[in-house]
Amino acid sequence: MPSDIDYFFNPSSIAVIGASRNPKKFGHIIFRNLNNDAVKTDAEGVIRSASSVFGKKVFPVNPKAEEILGKKCYKHISDIGEPVDLAVIVVPAESVVQSVAECREKGVKAAVIITSGFAEAGNAAGEEAVKKAAGSMRVVGPNVIGIYDAYSGVDTVFNLRHRQQRPRPGNIAFISQSGAFGSAALDLASFDGIGISKFVSLGNMADVNETDMLSYLLSDEKTGVICMYVEGSKDYRALYGKLKSSRKPVIVVKAGKTSQTRKAVASHTASMAGESRIFSGMLRQSGALETDAESLFDMAKIFSQPVMRNSRVHVVTDGGGFGILAADALVQNGMRLSKLSDKAVAKIRGCVPSYATVSNPLDLTGDADNARYKSVLPLVLGDKNVDALLVILLMQISSLDSDIVEVLASQRRFGKPVIVCMAGGEYTNLHRKMLEEKGIPTYSYPERAVSALAGMYRYQKMKRLRSQE
Amino acid sequence: MPSDIDYFFNPSSIAVIGASRNPKKFGHIIFRNLNNDAVKTDAEGVIRSASSVFGKKVFPVNPKAEEILGKKCYKHISDIGEPVDLAVIVVPAESVVQSVAECREKGVKAAVIITSGFAEAGNAAGEEAVKKAAGSMRVVGPNVIGIYDAYSGVDTVFNLRHRQQRPRPGNIAFISQSGAFGSAALDLASFDGIGISKFVSLGNMADVNETDMLSYLLSDEKTGVICMYVEGSKDYRALYGKLKSSRKPVIVVKAGKTSQTRKAVASHTASMAGESRIFSGMLRQSGALETDAESLFDMAKIFSQPVMRNSRVHVVTDGGGFGILAADALVQNGMRLSKLSDKAVAKIRGCVPSYATVSNPLDLTGDADNARYKSVLPLVLGDKNVDALLVILLMQISSLDSDIVEVLASQRRFGKPVIVCMAGGEYTNLHRKMLEEKGIPTYSYPERAVSALAGMYRYQKMKRLRSQE
Repeated sequence: MPSDIDYFFNPSSIAVIGASRNPKKFGHIIFRNLNNDAVKTDAEGVIRSASSVFGKKVFPVNPKAEEILGKKCYKHISDIGEPVDLAVIVVPAESVVQSVAECREKGVKAAVIITSGFAEAGNAAGEEAVKKAAGSMRVVGPNVIGIYDAYSGVDTVFNLRHRQQRPRPGNIAFISQSGAFGSAALDLASFDGIGISKFVSLGNMADVNETDMLSYLLSDEKTGVICMYVEGSKDYRALYGKLKSSRKPVIVVKAGKTSQTRKAVASHTASMAGESRIFSGMLRQSGALETDAESLFDMAKIFSQPVMRNSRVHVVTDGGGFGILAADALVQNGMRLSKLSDKAVAKIRGCVPSYATVSNPLDLTGDADNARYKSVLPLVLGDKNVDALLVILLMQISSLDSDIVEVLASQRRFGKPVIVCMAGGEYTNLHRKMLEEKGIPTYSYPERAVSALAGMYRYQKMKRLRSQE
Repeated sequence: MPSDIDYFFNPSSIAVIGASRNPKKFGHIIFRNLNNDAVKTDAEGVIRSASSVFGKKVFPVNPKAEEILGKKCYKHISDIGEPVDLAVIVVPAESVVQSVAECREKGVKAAVIITSGFAEAGNAAGEEAVKKAAGSMRVVGPNVIGIYDAYSGVDTVFNLRHRQQRPRPGNIAFISQSGAFGSAALDLASFDGIGISKFVSLGNMADVNETDMLSYLLSDEKTGVICMYVEGSKDYRALYGKLKSSRKPVIVVKAGKTSQTRKAVASHTASMAGESRIFSGMLRQSGALETDAESLFDMAKIFSQPVMRNSRVHVVTDGGGFGILAADALVQNGMRLSKLSDKAVAKIRGCVPSYATVSNPLDLTGDADNARYKSVLPLVLGDKNVDALLVILLMQISSLDSDIVEVLASQRRFGKPVIVCMAGGEYTNLHRKMLEEKGIPTYSYPERAVSALAGMYRYQKMKRLRSQE
C-alpha cells in the first residue's frame, strides 16, 4: 500500500492557493516554478523539458486574479472541476485556516503550508486551529519552503531558480527542519553536480514530522541514502526506532547543541532541542552517522560506491604534495596504505617514466597525461591488496584533458570504491561535475575525501558486525 | 638595503631559457604568460592589461628558434645586449648546469629552475653541480613551478590560465614546498576572490629555502599575512627563529605527518620531514598557526579584519538554521554570544517585523531585504557589548539583491571584524567574490567562519600576552 505521504511527491494535480501575478511574491515564484521554468536532466545528464516530465495539472487559486501566467485562475479551490491531490498554501497567516478547511472539503490529499507566523512566532493557537482544520489531510508545515522532487518535478521551493539552482536527479534524499539550510544545501548540491531524489523542509511539523518522513523515504525506491538536518524531535523514541531499523545509511546534522543555542531553536521551528550528548549517543546506538553541516553531502555521496572489503587504500596522484596530504589523512583516519604486489609494481613500472614514484602514494608526477592514468589505474585496482582507490587529479596541468573523466568512470568495473580529489577553480569544478554525474564522488581536499571514505568503511563494518549479532 | 631575493619578484628584465614555439611545452606557456596573456585587475578590481603593469623586458632564449610569439629569440643568454635580472630555466635536466653557468656569466641576479630530475629523483650529484655553477647567483628550485607576483606581474607558473586562474593582488603571501599544491591553491584563491601578494614554490631548495623566503616576506610591504605549505626543513632552528621574530601572522600546513608518509616526502622534494608532534610544538612555541590544507586561506584572509577586543560575537542571519549552527560553533570554539544592550534591542525592534527574533542569533527571517540589514547592522556593531559581527546571508531568497554588498562593506567603519557566511551555488559565489574584493571575508559554512574568527582571536590574545612578558 503506498503511503499517503507519497501525494506530496507524486501528485496527479496541484493547486497553488495564493498564486500571485506579482513576480516578487512567493505565490508567483512557486506557481512559475511548477509550470514552465524548469530545465530538467535525467540521471544520464540528458536534458528533458519540465512539462514532459511532470505530466501534471497545476491550478492557480486566487480570488483577485482572472489569469496567472496565461492560465485560468480559480477563485476558490472548490471551483476546480477536477480532483486535486496536493495543495501548496501560500496565503497570509490569518487566511491559512480557511484555506486548509477548503482544501479538506475539496478532498485534497496533502497540503504544504509555506506561510509562517504560527508556533515558531508564539502563535500556538493558530497552529492548533490549522491542525484541527486539516483533519486527516496530511500537512507539511507551516513555516516551510516545502518539497522538491527531482524525478517528478514537484518543486514548491519559493526561491528563484537563478538564485537557487535545483539539483539533478540522484539517490540522496534530504529532510531538513530548516528551510534556509535546505535551500542553500540544494543550491550547493546542484553546483557540485550531486544528485538528489527528494527534498522536504518540515518547518513546524504540525503534522508530518521527521520520523514520518524518514519512514516514507526508507521505502522509497529512488532513495538510497538519507540526509537529515535536525533541530529537535517531539518523539525521540520513535525517531530512534526508525533509525535503528534503517537499511539505508542515514546521515544527520544536529543543530542547537548547547544550552545557549537551544532556546534559539524554540523560536525557529518550535522544536524541543534535546541534550546534544544524549542525541549523539542515540544516533551512534541507532547506527546513524552524525556529521557537521559541511560534510553532509560529502558523506552521503560516498555511499554510491561499492562496499569496501578491507581498509587498504591506494593513492594515485599527479601532484606529490597532495599525495602526501592524502596519505597523512588515511593514516590519521585509521585506514591503511595498501602495498602493491611485486607483480603489479613491475607492470606499473613498465607504464610510467623512471622519475615516477611507484609506491603509495603512487606519484605519476606533474606531466601525467590521460594515457598514464589509463594504464596505471587498472593495475592498481586489479591488485588484490587494494580495497579502494583515491585518485588525485590536478586539472591545472596541461597534459590532462577532459577525456580523463571517461578513464576514471570506466574504473568502476572493478567493483571497488573509486573517489577523486581535485582542488581548483572553474576548469576543475567543471570536471568535478562531470565526474559526479558519472558516479565518481569528488572532493576538494584529501582530508575531505578520506574522511568520507573512512566514514563509509566504519559504517559498513558496524553493519556487518551487527548483522552477525 | 633591498634583499637580493627581490630580483625574483621585481626584476627589470627576464630571460626564459628554453622558451618554445610548441604551445604544449612549459617553455612556451611560461613565455606566453609573461608576455601577452594576462588580464590583471588592481586591488579595486579595475582591469589593467598585463603589459602596462609589467613594464619589463622578456627575452626568449632557444638556439633552435628565430622568433617566438613574434619576439626575436636569442640563441644564448650572452647574445642579449642588455642586462638580465631574472632567468627562468626550463631546459631538459641534462642542460641545466650549462644554462646556469651561462646565466651566472651574464650577470643574472636570480634564476628559477623549473626543470625536475635532481635530488628528488635520486640525482644528488646533478643538484650539487647546479649549486656549484650558480655561485652567488640566487636560485629557486630546481623542480618548481616558481614565482607569481600579483603586483609586478611576474608569473613563471607553467599552467595555462584557463586551467589555473591567477588571483588578484592582495596581502596574503604563500610559500609552498609543493608546486602542485601551490598551483591548485592559487586557482582556488582566484575562484574565491582572495587576493595574493606573492607566491613561490620552492621545490628542492638547492639555494633559497623556506626560511630565506619567510625572512624576505616579513619585510615585504605588500604582504600582511604569510601562508606556508611545509614538508620539511634542513634547518628547523633557523625556521623557528624566523617564525618567532615574526610580527605578521604565519599560517602553516605541514605534510608528511606520519612515519609512513615521511618517506614519500623524501622522493617528492628531497626534504627531511620532521617528527610531526615536535614540528607542531615548535610552531606553537614560535607563535605560528598550524592548520589543515583546506583552512589555509580561510585563516589567512580573516587577518584583514581589525583586532578583536574581546570574544563577544553577534550573529545576524536571514536563515534560522544557519544562525543556530553559527551560535553552536561559537560556543564550541570558546567564543561568547554577545548580549545586546536594552537600548540597542529597543532600537532594533523598531526596524524589524514582529516575527523577527531580536536575540543572538538575531534572526531577520527569510524575507529580509537590504534595508533590514542596513538598519540593523549598525545598531549591532555600534553596541559596546559586541566585539565582532558574523552575518549570515542566504542570497537564495528573492528579497536580497546585489546592493547588499555595499551595505556590508560600509560596516567596516565600526573598526570591528565583519565576516560573512553564505552557502550556495553560482549566484552566491558571485556575491562572495564581490564581498572578498571589498575586504569582507566570506565562508561557506558557519563552522568555517567561526573557526577562522576564533583562530584570529586566540592569535591576537597570545600576541598581547607575549608582548607583556
